Amino acid sequence: MTARSGRHFLQVPGPTNVPDRVLRAIDHPVIDHRGPEFAALARNVIAGLKRLMRCSGPVLIYPSSGTGAWEAAILNTLSPGDKVLTFETGQFATLWQAMAKRHGLEVDFVPGDWRRGVDPAELEARLTADRDHRIKAVMVVHNETSTGVTSAVPALREAIDRARHPALFMVDGISSIGATDYRHDDWKVDVTVLGSQKGLMLPPGLGFNAVSQKALAAAKQAKLPRGYFEWQPMIDANDTGLFPFTPPISLIVGLKEALAMLEEEGLDNVFARHDRFAEATRRAVKAWGLDFLSVNPKEHSASLTAVIAPDGHNADAIRATILERYDLSLGAGLGKVAGKVFRIGHLGWFNDLMLVGTLGGVEMGLGAAGVPHRKGGLAAAMDYLGGNVGAAAPARAQAR
Amino acid sequence: MTARSGRHFLQVPGPTNVPDRVLRAIDHPVIDHRGPEFAALARNVIAGLKRLMRCSGPVLIYPSSGTGAWEAAILNTLSPGDKVLTFETGQFATLWQAMAKRHGLEVDFVPGDWRRGVDPAELEARLTADRDHRIKAVMVVHNETSTGVTSAVPALREAIDRARHPALFMVDGISSIGATDYRHDDWKVDVTVLGSQKGLMLPPGLGFNAVSQKALAAAKQAKLPRGYFEWQPMIDANDTGLFPFTPPISLIVGLKEALAMLEEEGLDNVFARHDRFAEATRRAVKAWGLDFLSVNPKEHSASLTAVIAPDGHNADAIRATILERYDLSLGAGLGKVAGKVFRIGHLGWFNDLMLVGTLGGVEMGLGAAGVPHRKGGLAAAMDYLGGNVGAAAPARAQAR
Amino acid sequence: MTARSGRHFLQVPGPTNVPDRVLRAIDHPVIDHRGPEFAALARNVIAGLKRLMRCSGPVLIYPSSGTGAWEAAILNTLSPGDKVLTFETGQFATLWQAMAKRHGLEVDFVPGDWRRGVDPAELEARLTADRDHRIKAVMVVHNETSTGVTSAVPALREAIDRARHPALFMVDGISSIGATDYRHDDWKVDVTVLGSQKGLMLPPGLGFNAVSQKALAAAKQAKLPRGYFEWQPMIDANDTGLFPFTPPISLIVGLKEALAMLEEEGLDNVFARHDRFAEATRRAVKAWGLDFLSVNPKEHSASLTAVIAPDGHNADAIRATILERYDLSLGAGLGKVAGKVFRIGHLGWFNDLMLVGTLGGVEMGLGAAGVPHRKGGLAAAMDYLGGNVGAAAPARAQAR
Amino acid sequence: MTARSGRHFLQVPGPTNVPDRVLRAIDHPVIDHRGPEFAALARNVIAGLKRLMRCSGPVLIYPSSGTGAWEAAILNTLSPGDKVLTFETGQFATLWQAMAKRHGLEVDFVPGDWRRGVDPAELEARLTADRDHRIKAVMVVHNETSTGVTSAVPALREAIDRARHPALFMVDGISSIGATDYRHDDWKVDVTVLGSQKGLMLPPGLGFNAVSQKALAAAKQAKLPRGYFEWQPMIDANDTGLFPFTPPISLIVGLKEALAMLEEEGLDNVFARHDRFAEATRRAVKAWGLDFLSVNPKEHSASLTAVIAPDGHNADAIRATILERYDLSLGAGLGKVAGKVFRIGHLGWFNDLMLVGTLGGVEMGLGAAGVPHRKGGLAAAMDYLGGNVGAAAPARAQAR
Repeated sequence: MTARSGRHFLQVPGPTNVPDRVLRAIDHPVIDHRGPEFAALARNVIAGLKRLMRCSGPVLIYPSSGTGAWEAAILNTLSPGDKVLTFETGQFATLWQAMAKRHGLEVDFVPGDWRRGVDPAELEARLTADRDHRIKAVMVVHNETSTGVTSAVPALREAIDRARHPALFMVDGISSIGATDYRHDDWKVDVTVLGSQKGLMLPPGLGFNAVSQKALAAAKQAKLPRGYFEWQPMIDANDTGLFPFTPPISLIVGLKEALAMLEEEGLDNVFARHDRFAEATRRAVKAWGLDFLSVNPKEHSASLTAVIAPDGHNADAIRATILERYDLSLGAGLGKVAGKVFRIGHLGWFNDLMLVGTLGGVEMGLGAAGVPHRKGGLAAAMDYLGGNVGAAAPARAQAR
Repeated sequence: MTARSGRHFLQVPGPTNVPDRVLRAIDHPVIDHRGPEFAALARNVIAGLKRLMRCSGPVLIYPSSGTGAWEAAILNTLSPGDKVLTFETGQFATLWQAMAKRHGLEVDFVPGDWRRGVDPAELEARLTADRDHRIKAVMVVHNETSTGVTSAVPALREAIDRARHPALFMVDGISSIGATDYRHDDWKVDVTVLGSQKGLMLPPGLGFNAVSQKALAAAKQAKLPRGYFEWQPMIDANDTGLFPFTPPISLIVGLKEALAMLEEEGLDNVFARHDRFAEATRRAVKAWGLDFLSVNPKEHSASLTAVIAPDGHNADAIRATILERYDLSLGAGLGKVAGKVFRIGHLGWFNDLMLVGTLGGVEMGLGAAGVPHRKGGLAAAMDYLGGNVGAAAPARAQAR
Repeated sequence: MTARSGRHFLQVPGPTNVPDRVLRAIDHPVIDHRGPEFAALARNVIAGLKRLMRCSGPVLIYPSSGTGAWEAAILNTLSPGDKVLTFETGQFATLWQAMAKRHGLEVDFVPGDWRRGVDPAELEARLTADRDHRIKAVMVVHNETSTGVTSAVPALREAIDRARHPALFMVDGISSIGATDYRHDDWKVDVTVLGSQKGLMLPPGLGFNAVSQKALAAAKQAKLPRGYFEWQPMIDANDTGLFPFTPPISLIVGLKEALAMLEEEGLDNVFARHDRFAEATRRAVKAWGLDFLSVNPKEHSASLTAVIAPDGHNADAIRATILERYDLSLGAGLGKVAGKVFRIGHLGWFNDLMLVGTLGGVEMGLGAAGVPHRKGGLAAAMDYLGGNVGAAAPARAQAR
Repeated sequence: MTARSGRHFLQVPGPTNVPDRVLRAIDHPVIDHRGPEFAALARNVIAGLKRLMRCSGPVLIYPSSGTGAWEAAILNTLSPGDKVLTFETGQFATLWQAMAKRHGLEVDFVPGDWRRGVDPAELEARLTADRDHRIKAVMVVHNETSTGVTSAVPALREAIDRARHPALFMVDGISSIGATDYRHDDWKVDVTVLGSQKGLMLPPGLGFNAVSQKALAAAKQAKLPRGYFEWQPMIDANDTGLFPFTPPISLIVGLKEALAMLEEEGLDNVFARHDRFAEATRRAVKAWGLDFLSVNPKEHSASLTAVIAPDGHNADAIRATILERYDLSLGAGLGKVAGKVFRIGHLGWFNDLMLVGTLGGVEMGLGAAGVPHRKGGLAAAMDYLGGNVGAAAPARAQAR
């Protein structure tokens, strides 16, 4: 391959494009993690995370992937043999429940077709049927990064309330937070799980837990063995700007900038921007005559769109062609939909012309890969973008 | 204005997008310009510039803009009252001859309509008529950054030779070199003028002169007073990796990387890439029903396209709309064509999807600015790009 | 406080100074962790880690602190109720055994005075007495970052062999590797634990496990629940350049550069350099009339020196004065020696004049803090440095 | 040579160490120099330069070295045959007058021994003797970077005033401004010449002229031919945030940060810091039993100290030993004192421990190079630094 010119288009649904400002902040000499400068920094980013996640309780920062943050949620709140209820919305729901099983939990994993979010009625029914409250936690993925389908977390909260069930409510907001409205306190989420490499616009390497008082109380009783991910020493240390072990200083310096950028743009503007790009992308997909996984308009993801490759065409071959010809990275289909879908990430540090370039790359790549499609997808997206400057896609605004 | 998200599209025809690799090289602690590490660096970049400009003689690096490099060319070779012949191909030709006048030269400035390159026949005729060789230098802009029109330097060389005229041949390659084939030695150019911020993919701040033996001989006789831009002390110092004054170390560190990148891609590939993007851009413009300044297909620039705004529409207003809505910077019309054209830069560190984003921004911006046009410009460009992967546009290959 | 000028001196014993070259590598756009470019990168750094740790088996990279890498070592090899033998060499040995207890292991924690390494005879005696092989693992910290005392890992290995005991041998090389010779295979270590922020010259955020075949076999039987830190999925994924979850891409890009830098300098040169700086530091401390924790010359650390504050002087107050006046960060005393020692880090990306500045800051700071001492510490260090250009301190060379 | 570890000590008297914050600012994508963002930036830095130089009139920024800024001062104010008065204070005064000669000026160059500043009485006498005011300009170097000797610019101003002479007063503040108090307006300087790579803590590449109304009036009459360095088009363009040619955008972005840093520290603190480091350095030199060029205590430079190598010892050989052994770059002797002195830069982004490292490197290097000297230079400097935290050296405060 000849050397590439120009900027690579990284449009996997995470890691997302890291703003130059954030990269340059990370590119600063490391400071002493036990000194006063770091303590001020730590307090700054924790406060910013609380504003972003709308959480008044502790938010914990781990050097880990999102997977580590999942594990932290489980280990701190549950005991061996505890039952958890969760739903097969896609690959990440599947992996999270598998992790629960590894730790000796009993998992009620409600099957799904990867095209729909969690059904509040189903959740309510299952909890209502659980008369003796054997279910200790409900685990839900807010935005399935593998499918581009969201679940209506507020409606799920209402379902739990209607069932008057005491289970903890644990939500994976990894690819929704920073792209879509999220309200830890209002929705009475007990543990919110987050990673750095999606809406937060950072490189991967940080995992987060936002924690409710109810979850903190549960942690006092929880018996799963835990060390690295134990909340309490972290909470205690954070109170004085410290960490119980060497924190990932550089990424935390970047986190400060990323949070500042989100606030400078304004979270409402950030969310409207994501909705707008998602709608434009779906219009392109439809115009190509292709379909996407998500079937319920209220559940379409603001963060990514998973496009179904036509029968007889392998999505990974399409992606490979697009990468080779147009230097555009798209997300692979994962698990059950491996080879069947490709995913267009439209979250994070992103704008109209980056989206135009991305959709143009897909459109030309479909042609290059010999995938039957109608042209005009990008044109349809541009018609929408041109007429909707800065406006949110109306259909999605109330879906959350 | 709300804070921007995503990457700004800088598609003025210079400064061009600086590769991350080059920016990061510049972002290194400054070194001693009189130490052995810098001497090795200086030799490295001078050798690389010679390969790029295909010049076996000295290439000089000044901390200056391209304007400074113009001045260096004049001051080192000419004497007060000397006559120079030059041609009104656009704003930069106009500025260069104005500078010559400031320095007391007599300028024969052949008028032009800014839509055509220099006519070899006209050049030959003027030189032939100059029986007593009063013309001491012919000054030509290879690629007029203000118009997107090139002049056929080899044909001009042949015209000079046919006229058997001893004038020095001075060529501004500022926006052609690194984008278009350029051959200082083969074309017997005496002074080639270059700047850092176009095809070299660097920030502005460096000006270059490539110098023939004939020009060096002329310098010994030239009487225009000069100090900062005097060649000889620079040539002498460069021989040992030194400079006669503090060199712009950081930009020179970046220059090393930029030259390496061009060689890694291969100059032929670089030029073919530029031709391809230029052709795609012109197809978009035509599909919009708009026109560009350049009228002679063999003279279309590989570096930029200057698009004529329809009557009644101010090109600067169009640019302002595009900047405001789509975060895309285009080049303004300069001088005689101020307000009448906008310029799309497609040179430097650039690729298919950056071009798609750029043309998409123009197309949406034309709509937003209320400029009458047909849609489908981007689609036409993509049709071309999709079918011409890595291939040079045939029409232009032989134009040089 | 008035704004600081000049470079902060970060001489805590980790995180260490990150080379500009490594910082700038980290400061590059994130790439797709499932694409071919990342796969090549992952293979590159894993191979480099094997060379550095002299391990022919798997080396695993976790987004974690060193604490996480400790946990990975425990979780993958042991079962609830297993007995481990470990030694109180300092704060980190204490924390590691506490983590083992948290995970339900029985810990035989041999008391120590924090001034000596592990005694091979003691180890041999304890293992010999363990006739029925209830001890499943021996856990040792190679270089105690809290005390500046090393343990002779090869001699400990010999002790285990003499006792013909089958226990796994797990070694924390966090602050020794990259500063001191370390040989995973030769010393038949079963799990080596490493972090990124010491000899590897990276920001914190990566934890490593180097694993022997014996440890891999143990992992098949080990029953401690594990998810995030499970080795096998990581080993399987790494075979194709993948990770089982999103890897910390940016730090891994930096790791490639850091490993390259160590190899360019040559590991033997790296170790000799560390020995030399350590010897110079000790000479300064002695000349000041102060003492350091380590009492056995063969156990003095190449990475750091823990200096004992004279009676009646709080080491943290001394550090605060030094930070305030001279912008130099030193390591605090931890655990049992909190307030009693300060630690001078002399590992990582470091050279003579950085050491001179550091020791000068300590010497002036001792004066400013009113600590009784003789002047001339820095002079003594300089006498040594001036006479030992590039030479290893002889006394320490054979200690490992 | 084996690969180096740790940070290079760049203690030539310019280019100085560029703060990480400034380097990282420079490491940002280039912006359109004709767009609104750049216009705001240009206005910001010009205002900041006026505050730094204490100049209420125009300050012009050229992509050039300081040499270019010298030339700008000459070309804009003088006419062929004009007489200028200047003084041989060192290499840079010598080069500046040589440039004046090149441009056809008549130069009265008062000889000097390179160890003293300009004598106000001599200046007054010469101007008084110039009854018919043939001298059009007095050119003085405020701080001779080649010698470490300053001239008392206010006293020189008073001398001119006493002589009631109308000559323009042109001052090279290249290595004084940002290190030493400088007052363009108060001292009625007509043209102040500045470069980016000294007290401004930037990479080389920018030259500046601060201009009085008197100089502007002179420019209207001045007849030296000029193009690139012509003030008026720059002044006109700057009024709207523009430049007459492509400005060195990246360095200007860095300039904004550098000016902000100087203001955050406070100029008085900056100057006191430089005085303190200079005094410490001189004490070290004296304690070594060596001498420095500057003989008049009131003229000792705050920016650098030029140390005289003992008879029989070549200063360049000493420097080479120090560079090779201790990775410390010192300034060479220039011109008449080549091989006879080495120069220690102590200006710019610099602090106590960087100075300790620097002086330590010199002290060890003197030993390594076999230069007879007493030890204890660094100790003497530290005695001073330790007792003078943040305080200015009293002797120098009133020297300006």
